[in-house]
Amino acid sequence: MRKEGRLTRWIGWTVVVAAVLLLGFITGWCAKPTHPNTPDDTASGKYLREFLDEMRPEQIREHLRKFTRLPHLAGTEQNLNYAEQIMKEWKEFGLDSVEMVPYDVLLSYPNKSQPNYISIVDQLGSEVFNTSLAEPVPEGYEDVSNIVPPYSAFSPKGQPEGDLVYVNYGRTEDFFQLERDMGVNATGKIVIVRYGKIFRGNKVKNAMLAGAKGIIMFSDPADYWAAGVKPYPAGWNLPGGGAQRGNVLNLNGAGDPLTPGYPAKEYTYRLGLEDGVGLPKIPVHPIGFHDAINLLKNMGGQIPPNNWKGALNISYRIGPGFTDDFKSQKVRMNIQSNNQITRIYNVIGRIRGALEPDRYVILGGHRDAWVFGGIDPMSGAAVVHETVRSAGRLISKGWRPRRTLIFASWDAEEFGLQGSTEWAEDNAKLLQERAVAYINADSAIEGMYTLRVDCTPSLHTLVYDLTKQLDSPEEGEEGVSLYDSWHKRDNWTDNRDAPRISKLGSGSDFEAYFIRLGIAAGRARYTKNKKTERYSSYPVYHSVYETFEIVEKFYDPSFKRLRAVAQVRAGLIFQLADSQLLPLDVNQYAVALEKYAQSISQLAHRHPEDMNMYKVSFDSLFSAVENFTVAARDFHERLLALNKADPLQLRAVNDQLMYLERAFIDPLGLPGRPFYRHVIFAPSSHNKYAGESFPGIYDALFDIEHSADKQKSWEEVKRQISIAAFTVHAAAMTLTPPA
Amino acid sequence: MRKEGRLTRWIGWTVVVAAVLLLGFITGWCAKPTHPNTPDDTASGKYLREFLDEMRPEQIREHLRKFTRLPHLAGTEQNLNYAEQIMKEWKEFGLDSVEMVPYDVLLSYPNKSQPNYISIVDQLGSEVFNTSLAEPVPEGYEDVSNIVPPYSAFSPKGQPEGDLVYVNYGRTEDFFQLERDMGVNATGKIVIVRYGKIFRGNKVKNAMLAGAKGIIMFSDPADYWAAGVKPYPAGWNLPGGGAQRGNVLNLNGAGDPLTPGYPAKEYTYRLGLEDGVGLPKIPVHPIGFHDAINLLKNMGGQIPPNNWKGALNISYRIGPGFTDDFKSQKVRMNIQSNNQITRIYNVIGRIRGALEPDRYVILGGHRDAWVFGGIDPMSGAAVVHETVRSAGRLISKGWRPRRTLIFASWDAEEFGLQGSTEWAEDNAKLLQERAVAYINADSAIEGMYTLRVDCTPSLHTLVYDLTKQLDSPEEGEEGVSLYDSWHKRDNWTDNRDAPRISKLGSGSDFEAYFIRLGIAAGRARYTKNKKTERYSSYPVYHSVYETFEIVEKFYDPSFKRLRAVAQVRAGLIFQLADSQLLPLDVNQYAVALEKYAQSISQLAHRHPEDMNMYKVSFDSLFSAVENFTVAARDFHERLLALNKADPLQLRAVNDQLMYLERAFIDPLGLPGRPFYRHVIFAPSSHNKYAGESFPGIYDALFDIEHSADKQKSWEEVKRQISIAAFTVHAAAMTLTPPA
Repeated sequence: MRKEGRLTRWIGWTVVVAAVLLLGFITGWCAKPTHPNTPDDTASGKYLREFLDEMRPEQIREHLRKFTRLPHLAGTEQNLNYAEQIMKEWKEFGLDSVEMVPYDVLLSYPNKSQPNYISIVDQLGSEVFNTSLAEPVPEGYEDVSNIVPPYSAFSPKGQPEGDLVYVNYGRTEDFFQLERDMGVNATGKIVIVRYGKIFRGNKVKNAMLAGAKGIIMFSDPADYWAAGVKPYPAGWNLPGGGAQRGNVLNLNGAGDPLTPGYPAKEYTYRLGLEDGVGLPKIPVHPIGFHDAINLLKNMGGQIPPNNWKGALNISYRIGPGFTDDFKSQKVRMNIQSNNQITRIYNVIGRIRGALEPDRYVILGGHRDAWVFGGIDPMSGAAVVHETVRSAGRLISKGWRPRRTLIFASWDAEEFGLQGSTEWAEDNAKLLQERAVAYINADSAIEGMYTLRVDCTPSLHTLVYDLTKQLDSPEEGEEGVSLYDSWHKRDNWTDNRDAPRISKLGSGSDFEAYFIRLGIAAGRARYTKNKKTERYSSYPVYHSVYETFEIVEKFYDPSFKRLRAVAQVRAGLIFQLADSQLLPLDVNQYAVALEKYAQSISQLAHRHPEDMNMYKVSFDSLFSAVENFTVAARDFHERLLALNKADPLQLRAVNDQLMYLERAFIDPLGLPGRPFYRHVIFAPSSHNKYAGESFPGIYDALFDIEHSADKQKSWEEVKRQISIAAFTVHAAAMTLTPPA
Repeated sequence: MRKEGRLTRWIGWTVVVAAVLLLGFITGWCAKPTHPNTPDDTASGKYLREFLDEMRPEQIREHLRKFTRLPHLAGTEQNLNYAEQIMKEWKEFGLDSVEMVPYDVLLSYPNKSQPNYISIVDQLGSEVFNTSLAEPVPEGYEDVSNIVPPYSAFSPKGQPEGDLVYVNYGRTEDFFQLERDMGVNATGKIVIVRYGKIFRGNKVKNAMLAGAKGIIMFSDPADYWAAGVKPYPAGWNLPGGGAQRGNVLNLNGAGDPLTPGYPAKEYTYRLGLEDGVGLPKIPVHPIGFHDAINLLKNMGGQIPPNNWKGALNISYRIGPGFTDDFKSQKVRMNIQSNNQITRIYNVIGRIRGALEPDRYVILGGHRDAWVFGGIDPMSGAAVVHETVRSAGRLISKGWRPRRTLIFASWDAEEFGLQGSTEWAEDNAKLLQERAVAYINADSAIEGMYTLRVDCTPSLHTLVYDLTKQLDSPEEGEEGVSLYDSWHKRDNWTDNRDAPRISKLGSGSDFEAYFIRLGIAAGRARYTKNKKTERYSSYPVYHSVYETFEIVEKFYDPSFKRLRAVAQVRAGLIFQLADSQLLPLDVNQYAVALEKYAQSISQLAHRHPEDMNMYKVSFDSLFSAVENFTVAARDFHERLLALNKADPLQLRAVNDQLMYLERAFIDPLGLPGRPFYRHVIFAPSSHNKYAGESFPGIYDALFDIEHSADKQKSWEEVKRQISIAAFTVHAAAMTLTPPA
């Protein structure tokens, strides 16, 4: 019994020990996370708050002050100095790596010894009037050198002389009206148009197509003057001596005109100037309205309709040439600018992703400015700088994003988005496979009213969710969210009770990323009240009056608006980089496609007889959109059942979300525009600034009214509908289960 | 003491229990695999063996027998019947899903009531000789209907009449020699050329460029007759009454000529026939050598150099026209074929991947045949069928590949790779993101000598490793590996002691996958001894004599050669689909690039003065290749340290391997060939069959000798070198650590 008792006892103990061991084993087994590399989003949420709260108005003010003291045109020493300073500070802020990435691209500068100007010459050829050679320099900047005078970058040299023809905004429809309704031919003339409504490069192209031998662009107060506001420095309106600089290229996304499709490196083959992409063939020059009055006031010819008249105290006759009293006078342009291959510098900083270093979220904006860049672009660059500073602080606290963050300070945006496009070309193969999203950071403010967001539909939900977590920067709106403040000021439509979000057009550095590569993209800034403030852009746009002071005194004295923009941009990249599941909403894309299909179909139905005769139908497109809508809904439903703890399942779904935008890319490009490849969003061929949906169909429809061969034009409409339908179907396919 | 003793004891026990619990916990924690979804490769190896061993010669024989009884031209009912049968059997074999995917593409057929033929007509217009309307039908097939007579698919209708000009193989250099050295102009003539050396479509294009109004192609015994072999059915040579069918398009990868770039679906916009891609504008017709003798024997004009002479007992004069005795006779072509939009059917089967269903490995080959398709393509289709059967057996044993396997039976390959190209266009967005590799399965045998493999360099190592595990199918080589058998017969070069592997050209269904989309690709078949057997292709190629019996009696009586090919193709897809780490070798790509750069540079250096004068340098390309070589080596070294147990790390590395081939794609395409986008591999513009390395540079150099504007040609060479250098640099970048 004793032995047996011991045995029993031993057995008992053994069982107990075994049981305890087993219990421990099971506990250990279960306690261990299956996938240690998929942390949940709770920690991420805490870090987001810290990231946003760390950003300070006074810091943004300081960054803006620092980087607007001197002119820093692309290709100049000062812009390299700022690049080096940014590189140094980003390193100090704590980025993993910061590098300077140079390219050698075609830029354009006035000839310092032979200034550009426009004259009125008498019959002896003597200059009886000359436009000003520079803008009056604002107070405090009198001793600054290297202020480039107003010019049209990439204008060829030339001294064309002839009669003026006034063509309103220089739009396709303006030239059409001029020739068809007014019976005036611009061939061999110098056309003068006012700035506004469309991208200036399109005006120049239209003038060339009309046969003009030169084109002058002026800022009319009707388009660059806010009611009741004084000119700078007393207010923020454009002085009469101010003029808008700007490039006049028609690149359509090519980047450096001499190396389309490839990065402009040392070994890269360069086209000859005569073959360069988008270079204008006629002289171009911009002037302010003081000078414009002198050119316009004696013009003869017909009086145009009222919508051709600006706000100057003149009759806006269309010419050609001057009234009888001044018949012998001609206008002569004197343009001596030089195109030259010049080195530019992007600054690229990185925070390596902890779990998915091969997934990139990019925040990029340009650094180069026409002069000081108080608004364009440094209000945006200051915001990026503050974002990097805040990210660096998080890093120092042990945070690291799930995916890689890339920060870019682009060069030569003003010369045709060249820095960003060359880098996109250089890295296209990586970006295509790895880029989750691109957030653009050009000017952070262009008005004092409310938030403005342009982005791809899949970002809508994220933008709303984020702005609900942010504070309104407006005085008297303490405790009000940015979302509510924005919503109150700019409701979308009667049908959609939410703040308005617009389509992306072009004219800033997101272009290559969104329209060429198909990377989900968005931009945010503070803007004016579009309903009441009808001037184009903001009055001092691209003039010497874009100073630090104009922001500090007028646009954002508390720097809270810039902080709000910083929080939107920073919040977007944070969530895109750190969320387990990518915060992209495919259902919103479906909603948008449905709306766009309706709207482009309505545009076509303005020609019901034609549609009948040429058998044009949008059925295939609507059917594709319906297919997409179902696929998106099903995808979303499957998301609810997703096992986020399984890294491969999660990655596969995130890949579907990431590549959805890519699916809208047509490798063949839009007709005649190989670098505009997004079938859903691109600028129309008639205005680079405005984003059109289904741009291929839109352009084909636009041509209907101006075309000699109607059947051919409608065939092109049909071809474009077919391409759109295919693309939407194909995109829907990417959302179905992969096998 | 007692209490304390108890306490001590309790404490002791507690500690022990706690320790045991902890031990259990730790054991449990450590025992649990971190990543249950990354099984190692051991099980995979066992299944590979079973997969390969399951494939049986007698099964392949049976499949081949079954699918070669009736003619099954693309677009015919019988080819749909076979598609349905394949779909049914693949389902029975156990695939997860099998679907039929139709497209409506442009095909071409002879007019049944107005046959195509060529006449010699006398001065009264009477036909004094007509070519045969059909090939003599082989024994056993006399009662078979629907044997399409020899024709050149996509020839336009027409009855051109004129003098013959003989232009050897109809190559660019032959026409150049004709015009420059022999002083004969082909404008307005009917050219007659022999088959061989280059793709027939290129011959037709050259004839058009030379101004010919028709072109006749014949099979010369010099090119389609093996010494000492009897004509079919006594042997495997081409009888004199046999002729080679084939399409004469110049698609350059466009697929359906009417829907370039987009899948030919119901809603797809179609070009008019006049705008169709690659359609010849002059009548074309193929004949056998019995007929050819009658056309050639009375020709007059110069006697050409010996390398223009075939093996017929005639003098091969070049014309134009006949000798004096027959001066009044002309040749008239009578072509009545129709182009028509026709429904074709691909069969697509799938095995869903267990862990990475969103990664695709594809085995595809065509099903449509000119007549019975005994060799082309059914010897390949039988191999695919057997592969699917064997895969189904594995599935039934519980196996499931890591990645998704896709099996394809393509339609209308013979009409310009249409089935495979339309499907690639339809699925381009998925394939771009998800396709790991494409293995092609056209004819599995074209000779009786040894293995032939053409593939991308990153597959070289896998091909060698695999063939070392397989048996030689040759009699008397029991116990010898396929690798050794192959190596013995076809060593690469003096510098490289390994079996020869060649570059991929075009002419089969891998084209859209490899050259357009940049998916790693390869093909394997049994071939002839190139050193001793100098005929083109195999003698009965595309004739009615491609029967089951020609394979059974001559090419592979034991069906072991076909089994060996099956094991190579199947082994490749198995390892690509099931290996944890993708079996792609980036170092081999570096080795290949170095070789290609040397070779293209040597080609250019045939013009040393020009290179000097136009400042042409290959330095940038060599430097890029060196950069790539270092990146590949570093990548490979990092692989050794890879934690394969971390699914995200493994996936990231596999993505780098998968996307390497994609990095060689230039979205802008090769000059004038938007669908040939692979910068490293594409056919030259002068011969679709032959794969050239750095085809952009190659074509530009080819033009040097034929160009009027030398400077322009050399500028193009320089531009192409720059594109190649950029592409290789960019590909290298994809191999560096992602952040």
